[in-house]
Amino acid sequence: MANVAKKVSWSGRDRDDEDDDEEEGRAGEATPLLNGTGPGAGGARQETELPRQYPNEIPHNEKLLSLKYESLDYDNSENQLFLEEERRINHAAFRTVEIKRWVICAMIGILTGLVACFIDIVVENLAGLKYRVVKDNIDKFTEKGGLSFSLLLWATLNASVVMVGSVIVAFIEPVAAGSGIPQIKCYLNGVKIPHVVRLKTLVIKVCGVILSVVGGLAVGKEGPMIHSGAVIAAGISQGRSTSLKRDFKIFEYFRRDTEKRDFVSAGAAAGVSAAFGAPVGGVLFSLEEGASFWNQFLTWRIFFASMISTFTLNSVLSVYHGNAWDLSSPGLINFGRFDNEKMGYTIQEIPIFIFMGVVGGILGALFNALNYWLTMFRIRYIHRPCLQVIEAMLVAAVTAAVGFVMIYCSRDCQPIQGSTVTYPLQLFCADGEYNSMATAFFNTPEKSVVNLFHDPPGSYNPMTLGMFTLMYFFLACWTYGLTVSAGVFIPSLLIGAAWGRLFGISLSYLTKGSIWADPGKYALMGAAAQLGGIVRMTLSLTVIMMEATGNVTYGFPIMLVLMTAKIVGDYFVEGLYDMHIQLQSVPFLHWEAPVTSHSLTAREVMSTPVTCLRRIERVGTVVDILSDTSSNHNGFPVVESNPDATQVAGLRGLILRSQLIVLLKHKVFVERANLSLVQRRLKLKDFRDAYPRFPPIQSIHVSQDERECMIDLSEFMNPSPYTVPQEASLPRVFKLFRALGLRHLVVVDNRNEVVGMVTRKDLARYRLGKEGLEELSLAQT
Amino acid sequence: MANVAKKVSWSGRDRDDEDDDEEEGRAGEATPLLNGTGPGAGGARQETELPRQYPNEIPHNEKLLSLKYESLDYDNSENQLFLEEERRINHAAFRTVEIKRWVICAMIGILTGLVACFIDIVVENLAGLKYRVVKDNIDKFTEKGGLSFSLLLWATLNASVVMVGSVIVAFIEPVAAGSGIPQIKCYLNGVKIPHVVRLKTLVIKVCGVILSVVGGLAVGKEGPMIHSGAVIAAGISQGRSTSLKRDFKIFEYFRRDTEKRDFVSAGAAAGVSAAFGAPVGGVLFSLEEGASFWNQFLTWRIFFASMISTFTLNSVLSVYHGNAWDLSSPGLINFGRFDNEKMGYTIQEIPIFIFMGVVGGILGALFNALNYWLTMFRIRYIHRPCLQVIEAMLVAAVTAAVGFVMIYCSRDCQPIQGSTVTYPLQLFCADGEYNSMATAFFNTPEKSVVNLFHDPPGSYNPMTLGMFTLMYFFLACWTYGLTVSAGVFIPSLLIGAAWGRLFGISLSYLTKGSIWADPGKYALMGAAAQLGGIVRMTLSLTVIMMEATGNVTYGFPIMLVLMTAKIVGDYFVEGLYDMHIQLQSVPFLHWEAPVTSHSLTAREVMSTPVTCLRRIERVGTVVDILSDTSSNHNGFPVVESNPDATQVAGLRGLILRSQLIVLLKHKVFVERANLSLVQRRLKLKDFRDAYPRFPPIQSIHVSQDERECMIDLSEFMNPSPYTVPQEASLPRVFKLFRALGLRHLVVVDNRNEVVGMVTRKDLARYRLGKEGLEELSLAQT
Repeated sequence: MANVAKKVSWSGRDRDDEDDDEEEGRAGEATPLLNGTGPGAGGARQETELPRQYPNEIPHNEKLLSLKYESLDYDNSENQLFLEEERRINHAAFRTVEIKRWVICAMIGILTGLVACFIDIVVENLAGLKYRVVKDNIDKFTEKGGLSFSLLLWATLNASVVMVGSVIVAFIEPVAAGSGIPQIKCYLNGVKIPHVVRLKTLVIKVCGVILSVVGGLAVGKEGPMIHSGAVIAAGISQGRSTSLKRDFKIFEYFRRDTEKRDFVSAGAAAGVSAAFGAPVGGVLFSLEEGASFWNQFLTWRIFFASMISTFTLNSVLSVYHGNAWDLSSPGLINFGRFDNEKMGYTIQEIPIFIFMGVVGGILGALFNALNYWLTMFRIRYIHRPCLQVIEAMLVAAVTAAVGFVMIYCSRDCQPIQGSTVTYPLQLFCADGEYNSMATAFFNTPEKSVVNLFHDPPGSYNPMTLGMFTLMYFFLACWTYGLTVSAGVFIPSLLIGAAWGRLFGISLSYLTKGSIWADPGKYALMGAAAQLGGIVRMTLSLTVIMMEATGNVTYGFPIMLVLMTAKIVGDYFVEGLYDMHIQLQSVPFLHWEAPVTSHSLTAREVMSTPVTCLRRIERVGTVVDILSDTSSNHNGFPVVESNPDATQVAGLRGLILRSQLIVLLKHKVFVERANLSLVQRRLKLKDFRDAYPRFPPIQSIHVSQDERECMIDLSEFMNPSPYTVPQEASLPRVFKLFRALGLRHLVVVDNRNEVVGMVTRKDLARYRLGKEGLEELSLAQT
Repeated sequence: MANVAKKVSWSGRDRDDEDDDEEEGRAGEATPLLNGTGPGAGGARQETELPRQYPNEIPHNEKLLSLKYESLDYDNSENQLFLEEERRINHAAFRTVEIKRWVICAMIGILTGLVACFIDIVVENLAGLKYRVVKDNIDKFTEKGGLSFSLLLWATLNASVVMVGSVIVAFIEPVAAGSGIPQIKCYLNGVKIPHVVRLKTLVIKVCGVILSVVGGLAVGKEGPMIHSGAVIAAGISQGRSTSLKRDFKIFEYFRRDTEKRDFVSAGAAAGVSAAFGAPVGGVLFSLEEGASFWNQFLTWRIFFASMISTFTLNSVLSVYHGNAWDLSSPGLINFGRFDNEKMGYTIQEIPIFIFMGVVGGILGALFNALNYWLTMFRIRYIHRPCLQVIEAMLVAAVTAAVGFVMIYCSRDCQPIQGSTVTYPLQLFCADGEYNSMATAFFNTPEKSVVNLFHDPPGSYNPMTLGMFTLMYFFLACWTYGLTVSAGVFIPSLLIGAAWGRLFGISLSYLTKGSIWADPGKYALMGAAAQLGGIVRMTLSLTVIMMEATGNVTYGFPIMLVLMTAKIVGDYFVEGLYDMHIQLQSVPFLHWEAPVTSHSLTAREVMSTPVTCLRRIERVGTVVDILSDTSSNHNGFPVVESNPDATQVAGLRGLILRSQLIVLLKHKVFVERANLSLVQRRLKLKDFRDAYPRFPPIQSIHVSQDERECMIDLSEFMNPSPYTVPQEASLPRVFKLFRALGLRHLVVVDNRNEVVGMVTRKDLARYRLGKEGLEELSLAQT
């Protein structure tokens, strides 16, 4: 199977290659040097360069693993420079570092909260404006006829707003598309997604999400908050911005992958916390998705950032809404107050909840399956930015049209008195009544969800709910994956709340009222079931839902519903985020190696042969190795310089491409004739300044004379890289690699000689398929 | 400094040595073979056997690390047998294993919930009986004089109940003393505490806690639930009981440290969940204390067990209380309903809460410091069981006497109408009134806490609260560490609630009512501050408090209070549990290596020389090595059998003492003359059946002929043990060891030859003291 595949990535286009300041070498960490015929490599490593243009159809094979994704390195390169610095820092200085960490977390929380406020206030105002304009128009034309003008107005408004939102995403920063949750999952997992934590991405994301929601798409503004929080965290913790080209010269200690990841975790948690008013849920989200190694101090800091974030949002929004002191808006979406007494559940309802979980699981799987085909279609045919914008506009217009037709056809009129509906559309209802379908369609999705939870029984008739569920399901499914910034949480909740409420009403009806099912409670359970069926998160989602209801009473039924939905859904198809990660061929490492992989050993999974460097190496050799585009390794084992016959050329250390490049750039080498001369010393700062965008080797000029110089790597290499023997089983290798967040793992033989190298793609390649263990092919997509 | 120290351990007495079925070798994992003069060993390893009797004073040095604690091994020994089994198991069989895990978790939840119910119901009835008897007596004697009889009755009742409770703990199972939380922390950290998860311990614990609470001590029944849950989990997951000598032949796959630990985590979580009605808090507790490696599936299962546990408790107690369907008792203690509207907080209260956190931190530190001195005193002088029983009885009698005198002297009378007090003592109050001090003292502590939270403003006068706080503070401090089963959570909450309420009243009074401080809200914050100041838990405690109030509104202030209390408290002295762990000289591994330890390398911390075995080894040599009581290693690196001059004797594997013992027991060896003969094959089952109490080497008879046989270890050793090079820094070694839960880590040189071994004590020995890095001495206590 030759994989001549070329496909649209999250960054949306292949023109990204021009952005070579990001490129630390485009291939995997240690693709085999020669021909790629390592034992475990399969025949899949032929790389064929396709012409750089947009083909009409892009063949896509889902059993691929892309080689274009770099890995992050969560293991400190513990070389002499690093150790010297650490040894110089005394106890008091470490305390300062610790305080800085807390300050950064507080700043992350505050900024994330403020960004959430900004989004909320702008959306509320713009959407309010839009709905008022359309409502006035509809009210006008209802009387004198010609409602098709209203439809046209609504659809045009939506489509034009969405067009702007889609254009900025498609043309300026494609990685800002979608909710960003899969991207953040990948980042925390250790995969480097280009541009994902840049300031530019944040700006596009924020504008994009405002425009998508105002444009009336079936999307929410909650998911993107997670991405926004992560970007804020990455920016603050590094004390500089690439987009702004500003370096504030602060927090330099944190300029490495390990520290940055910890802050990004905090940022993601702060984002969840601001979105749902769920600080604990935020922490759990970060841990569930990211941190493989649990550390109490880190967790506590993450929680602090989360709490600050929701508190900031709460304070600002409370002031904005004029009730400054009561702190009543903990999150962007607030499920409203579920009253204990009215809404408690009884034991006999539990089987019903479990049944709802089954329904949610099936509907979620259906959603994911449909979206899967749609995404495949998009990857193949809709990969040009302009097509993407047109599709987004089409969806916006269709959403408005469907909404309009549904409202138009609905005959569900409810008395306006005592109801809390924001934009009551009278349409063909009697005076003093409003169209009930309009409360669901003619509103921001957040408000519709809360209405479904809390409107008094009888506010919707079953027909309305059924039609709404059906239509919104397909609209939301079509919408997810468009080139706009938007989340899938709220639409999922909305679909679930609608069928949940319908379910509650039917139950009451079928049992002739003997089971009094409060429709609001069933709407909540339906929402949980649907969301769980789509995203398949576990503990964190339970806690998020629990915190969003502000009430721990529902913990147990929500857990049951989510668990059932997950089990049922997993039977059919995987979760939406995992599906999209897989469709992008990202080398994502799951929690554990596939259970049946004990038959594989390090010898079979490793890449071999490995390019090794000698401890004192010729500069020319280094340059040649780094320039070799066919391999593009990122880590090189260092072996003894002069192995004679009796001495073993055992592993001495590991050096990274990025380190070598800094060394070459600073001309850290001596002439061969003067080996006794002391080579120029570098400081850790020189490496940190170059992080994370090390220049490509091509930009460094090395003269012919310099090529003959020698470079001593001893001081810069990590002298104690982690190693595994060849006999170690895949699960064992996997555990070591995953638990420590490694990038390179050297495989050695009994005499400590290097025999291979294990990197992320070597482990991510094995997967548990329907028929047992399967191996993905690697491709230079 | 020679450490000729011998002290009372958690198991309370040295007679424990008779229980040698637990002894897998009493020394550390790999104390140096010869003289213990490894570079990092210090001069502290001389061992002097003291006569086995109780000396009058036991010298105790807090800067010690005991060698008597074994380590658990959370790394699978991945030998051929294991791999063969894993390879035989197909996908479907793994699914069965997975289902079994879920079933076990459900059973853990149900049983933990039932045990909690049992404790609750028995305590309620017995305590009710006691209070009614004493109340009748007081009522009788108030009229006709001679209240000293009542005092005598009360004190005698308490002392005799506590005597029984203390006798069973001191004489039958000393490890059941206290809350068990430090022990479970150690277990989850990887330290083997003898008897800690035995059925006998559970029985004693449950009876002990009932008797302590009924005996009127200043203790709670919540902490012990965590230990109970852990024992239940360990028992169920192994499918057998040592105490009952029954093996149900089920769940044999789970008979190893790794799997058992996961279930024990679930059990501890289920215990927290049942105690406080806090399923999420329970999960976080388990993770914070135990699991270094976060795994989504595991977490989800732990959460399931927690939920089932609180649900079981809730259902049974609801039925017991006669309101079967309303599920209103989620935990043993339930803070009652905090009403949002009445109890919301405003922004200007936040500095006040922070101030309360400071107070809680200082009071907590004071509590811990006092308890520290008390514990030192106890270790030195009160180490005989009978003295321990007498002390417990004394405390019980004093508690009753103090309570009585306080009630007697109090003139705080409150109208009985409209109040919810359970046992109203009229004493010298007017008819229709009750003595307010008696609601605090004459009640189970749980009820007193809830009363302080929810009694209407004005139920207590400030004098009552002040006196109560003062007295209860010292009583609780004296009580913690007695040889009875009891927890410190509830007394801490009670002290905090009392001064918190006092604080609220004073605040309102001092500002002349301009700050209307609801006393109940301040009581809650005070309780959080005090508890946080004592135990110093972080995220988990916040969530537990949040869930116990059934309301997420207080999340932010509770977090602030706990954080402040922790920071302030940590400035003075460490948390109560950590303090007790340290006083027991347990080799506990914290989250990270001390920050300033980068100057140490593996070479300096490792134990050396290491006893190695050859791949094909003489039986006699093996027996001699295992019988050598001066070293008592538990893991042995295996090297190549016949290293000639040109070949390096590199590391080939690692074999455990327990494995060697099983091999010897089953006579797995061949005569030297017939090396070609196939050695007898063992199954993994043979190892599992012996787990976890492998027989001591002394019980295995090896004849003189057999000593000359050869044993081939290839099949049984772990061929890919984790290794580190000598140059690796301590933090690097620590991270690897801690993240993977290792027991042995082999240190190798550049040629893969064994140069040393790192075990738990080598890492736990380094600690961050006031003046920087300090090294604890090792002692055979």
